[in-house]
Amino acid sequence: MVKNYSVRTDLALEEKERFESDNVEIPGVVLEEDYDQERDIRVTRVEIRTENGAKAMGKPTGTYLTVETPDLSLPDEEKHVEIAARLCGYIRELIEKHREPAGNGEGEAENEDISILVVGLGNRDVTPDALGPYVADHLNVTRHIVKEYGKYAMGMENVDMVSAIVPGVMGQTGMESAEIVRGIVQETHPDIVIAVDALAARNSRRLNRTVQIADTGIHPGSGVGNHRVGMTEESLGVPVIGIGVPTVVDAATIVNDTMENFIRALESSESLKGVGEVLRSYNAGEKYEFVKELIAPHLNGMFVTPKDVDEMIHQISHTISEAINMLSSQFSHA
Amino acid sequence: MVKNYSVRTDLALEEKERFESDNVEIPGVVLEEDYDQERDIRVTRVEIRTENGAKAMGKPTGTYLTVETPDLSLPDEEKHVEIAARLCGYIRELIEKHREPAGNGEGEAENEDISILVVGLGNRDVTPDALGPYVADHLNVTRHIVKEYGKYAMGMENVDMVSAIVPGVMGQTGMESAEIVRGIVQETHPDIVIAVDALAARNSRRLNRTVQIADTGIHPGSGVGNHRVGMTEESLGVPVIGIGVPTVVDAATIVNDTMENFIRALESSESLKGVGEVLRSYNAGEKYEFVKELIAPHLNGMFVTPKDVDEMIHQISHTISEAINMLSSQFSHA
Amino acid sequence: MVKNYSVRTDLALEEKERFESDNVEIPGVVLEEDYDQERDIRVTRVEIRTENGAKAMGKPTGTYLTVETPDLSLPDEEKHVEIAARLCGYIRELIEKHREPAGNGEGEAENEDISILVVGLGNRDVTPDALGPYVADHLNVTRHIVKEYGKYAMGMENVDMVSAIVPGVMGQTGMESAEIVRGIVQETHPDIVIAVDALAARNSRRLNRTVQIADTGIHPGSGVGNHRVGMTEESLGVPVIGIGVPTVVDAATIVNDTMENFIRALESSESLKGVGEVLRSYNAGEKYEFVKELIAPHLNGMFVTPKDVDEMIHQISHTISEAINMLSSQFSHA
Amino acid sequence: MVKNYSVRTDLALEEKERFESDNVEIPGVVLEEDYDQERDIRVTRVEIRTENGAKAMGKPTGTYLTVETPDLSLPDEEKHVEIAARLCGYIRELIEKHREPAGNGEGEAENEDISILVVGLGNRDVTPDALGPYVADHLNVTRHIVKEYGKYAMGMENVDMVSAIVPGVMGQTGMESAEIVRGIVQETHPDIVIAVDALAARNSRRLNRTVQIADTGIHPGSGVGNHRVGMTEESLGVPVIGIGVPTVVDAATIVNDTMENFIRALESSESLKGVGEVLRSYNAGEKYEFVKELIAPHLNGMFVTPKDVDEMIHQISHTISEAINMLSSQFSHA
Repeated sequence: MVKNYSVRTDLALEEKERFESDNVEIPGVVLEEDYDQERDIRVTRVEIRTENGAKAMGKPTGTYLTVETPDLSLPDEEKHVEIAARLCGYIRELIEKHREPAGNGEGEAENEDISILVVGLGNRDVTPDALGPYVADHLNVTRHIVKEYGKYAMGMENVDMVSAIVPGVMGQTGMESAEIVRGIVQETHPDIVIAVDALAARNSRRLNRTVQIADTGIHPGSGVGNHRVGMTEESLGVPVIGIGVPTVVDAATIVNDTMENFIRALESSESLKGVGEVLRSYNAGEKYEFVKELIAPHLNGMFVTPKDVDEMIHQISHTISEAINMLSSQFSHA
Repeated sequence: MVKNYSVRTDLALEEKERFESDNVEIPGVVLEEDYDQERDIRVTRVEIRTENGAKAMGKPTGTYLTVETPDLSLPDEEKHVEIAARLCGYIRELIEKHREPAGNGEGEAENEDISILVVGLGNRDVTPDALGPYVADHLNVTRHIVKEYGKYAMGMENVDMVSAIVPGVMGQTGMESAEIVRGIVQETHPDIVIAVDALAARNSRRLNRTVQIADTGIHPGSGVGNHRVGMTEESLGVPVIGIGVPTVVDAATIVNDTMENFIRALESSESLKGVGEVLRSYNAGEKYEFVKELIAPHLNGMFVTPKDVDEMIHQISHTISEAINMLSSQFSHA
Repeated sequence: MVKNYSVRTDLALEEKERFESDNVEIPGVVLEEDYDQERDIRVTRVEIRTENGAKAMGKPTGTYLTVETPDLSLPDEEKHVEIAARLCGYIRELIEKHREPAGNGEGEAENEDISILVVGLGNRDVTPDALGPYVADHLNVTRHIVKEYGKYAMGMENVDMVSAIVPGVMGQTGMESAEIVRGIVQETHPDIVIAVDALAARNSRRLNRTVQIADTGIHPGSGVGNHRVGMTEESLGVPVIGIGVPTVVDAATIVNDTMENFIRALESSESLKGVGEVLRSYNAGEKYEFVKELIAPHLNGMFVTPKDVDEMIHQISHTISEAINMLSSQFSHA
Repeated sequence: MVKNYSVRTDLALEEKERFESDNVEIPGVVLEEDYDQERDIRVTRVEIRTENGAKAMGKPTGTYLTVETPDLSLPDEEKHVEIAARLCGYIRELIEKHREPAGNGEGEAENEDISILVVGLGNRDVTPDALGPYVADHLNVTRHIVKEYGKYAMGMENVDMVSAIVPGVMGQTGMESAEIVRGIVQETHPDIVIAVDALAARNSRRLNRTVQIADTGIHPGSGVGNHRVGMTEESLGVPVIGIGVPTVVDAATIVNDTMENFIRALESSESLKGVGEVLRSYNAGEKYEFVKELIAPHLNGMFVTPKDVDEMIHQISHTISEAINMLSSQFSHA
């Protein structure tokens, strides 16, 4: 209802949820959910398969994997290794999907080394936006070693070349992150880009506990910073795996949500039944007028973030770095 | 009305405003406002003179000076020097008010050197809470030089001894900031403590542009971090000037405010007059039930902050450091 | 010989070595060395037992444990856990030595909880001096939790209370670190202080691979910063375990050492035998005149440090944090 | 003499000095020195005009301006503005020298806007190598504003577009800085690159007080980090102004210098005349054997830096940022 006016979300999962609440099937969009009760990990796979599906969802066709678990924000190293291994598996799945098929047979593709450029998007100086830079900080970059000493220097038969860049934000560089990364891609020719970014969620309950991995890259308007140009295969020239963690909710979103709850409550309220009746007699547009007026304009440019955001960002960035570091060994043992 | 359930504010000015909207005079509380139109600087002085006034305001007796100006967040160095000079004047006024009178005459008091311990409260790793640490970073500390070489080493007749500490937050230290500072005060015997902290405002329009200077120190529950023990003359043993800058608004506050607007709008709405009539027939308690239900419980521990908070904190912290650095020269020229 | 004019070292081990080269036994000083060939870890225990020994060594009476291993600077997490466990054992040994004996029997002493204040000395902004602050960053501080919820909140029967402080350096605070820590000790009453500091070694080969643990605290003149007052039981009022890692060598030391080698080489040289003969005919004082003149005075205040100091400091600080974090579980399982 | 075996310097001025001590004129190299006694600023201009001169100097043809003043390390803001203005003038001179002449006449060239990419080389996490990143931090980048709103948005007729990048070091990125910057140059087409880097000096007296500005870019082997590929017009495709500040001296250099002094002293010593006579009878190669043996091999990879390096780097980086920020206004007023 009021959702037509809703602030957007960077999570495909949340986009899908909007429709589900109305029990609407979206043609061209497939959702699979897997809940591991013992470990309390929920994995949701949204496949947007058709252009119509993409239009309905407001997101490009591709695969969106969302991992949700409260363990992501707990300081339990063992669990983090477990989550990292799982994330690594999903990243690998999406990489395999996009690798150039080997000339003579599929079997060999897995034995080939791959070169990966990891892009840590965001602003290191604004805590909830520092996820990407922190992930880059903890990577084992290997490209320069493999280039200088050959892959046998690493003591493995198959070895990926990992490079990493923290492009900074436009206010610091005067350039779009996409311009910087495109230049580096054209110069260093990675097979694939993994772009890590802090996202904005619609629902504050998703903060701290959600990672989205998508083979559609990173799209404008996400998160705390404002990348105006996306980081996609179209803009960079190589496939882009986007890894996003919601760290903030737009302030206007939170107010909007509460307003929706309020209207819904008024409509169904026993004690204020009269109000509900009156409200029901007005249409969505009229109700929206209230909401628009009431959401203070100075909330634009404001975001909501948990007080322990620093700890959370450090922990989750370690887990994601670990997942990417595991990629090399996985591929090389393949 | 709903204000009885309101989330608290760290600004005496905002506490006073709550009453003004009802045109209530609070006995024992005097408010003076001075607006410099040319410079667009508004200075509000709230004096809480009696214990009754303190009770009504929920703040201890003392002087609260609030400087509001949009220039605080602009990168105009000249204006910042101007604002720093003004802040320095107010800090000095409050220091003079609390200096021990000289034994034989008041005239001499101003010629005496003073030793100041500046405390940079907050968490350096969480951007909106880093104001205090950043202020400490830019101070000219002099205590060790004066102690070693005498005040003539500084080339002035009168010279203050400035020391500074960034105590960290309880999650990092396992100690209350007040415990740490009390220990240091007892060991180094400053005449006065200036404690700088990021505050929570009620009104997001105050972010970026407001400094509160009070001779009542810093009180529990302020800002992003959670000091559970205040930083006051009572807890530290010497007078405490608190300098606070609102950098966040509690997420629940923003939602609550919008709800209040909404109810007010419903009550006066032409198009939804019926709803207003129904609402008017219910009492404050009933209305509050809605608000309480609708403010999502997971908003606890969340705060709202502007996207450019990093830049803002850096700029304002420089201005406050400068104001404190000016103190020495001011006093010594006295 | 020339060693009488030598720049001092913070490592008791190196002080002892000076004498050994002359095969001199120092009364009151006992040295034990243990080399684990398989793991390539060398542990040296220097016990200074008498005041005469202390005088000869230029260090107070007490126990100095030095752990040397090239693994300390390698990024091998498994080895770091192993080293941390070993360091933890040594720290524990020194703590046990200084614990107040329980009133009624020794057996119970081990069951008693202990409260520890960890002090991270040094300047976070100067890489080779940031060891102490980095160690503090990675500690599990527990004092505030135990104080609020009781030790059973931690799910253990015996639990230590760990608190931590990064006092900063005098140029930032205007205060001696010892003043700050003494104030905090008097306010929060820890049973013991563990002070972590970056040290200066005499021998650049010790950088990256050495940890010294001593029950005599931290002494003036150590390392990159200049603590002018020691951090000892005498100055703080409770026993102080000093943990030091050499991260720099004084520039003058390195030059001096090379000069000594040069003179020694001249004395024994075949090809320049004539020079050696002439030099042998002069006394130590005359030779020292050369050295003094040649060591450029502007080398004062300069230090030598490896180019990969950042990585090294991060790695070693993690290992030491881990060792201290292990203390709690060790003690509580005792 | 022994200088043939000398460790290299990044300062053209120091390279030239090596020859001067022998009163040798180098064909194709012109040196001009200007000393402003009142302000204690020495400006040296080394012009390497021929390939022979370049070969002799071990540096490419071009202009090397060196500004030396003790004020660079003093915290006197007024003096820093003065120095910044002077540096700005030299940078401008070198930019003008390399601007493409306008199609129809030289006069117009100065009225044309210019787009500048500032590259902050070095490792933000190693204090003496952080100069480049710190300079980038304090720049007024404008490219994105001019691109979006046009140059009239800046309120000036002529306005430069300034962008900035901190590429990181190879150990963090797996890529040569030159690869990263070349990619960005090809993507964003700046007219000129200004690359800022911390350098290694030969003489520790130059630390803290020297800035070199050259139109030959940045060359391999400089400073703390190890750029293996230069940042030059040849490698990047646009002219490169290199701004370098010596922040370290190679440890081996300092030892080597002292050895040279020692040998010189022995040769001229009254008290050890005999040694001198013997030494004089040996040739340079024999003497060098000593030096080589005596400079400990583990000094490789070690550098010498002043203890107050953090403060120094912050101050000088501000001054250089200011100089680059002044460029825009200078050019636009032209």
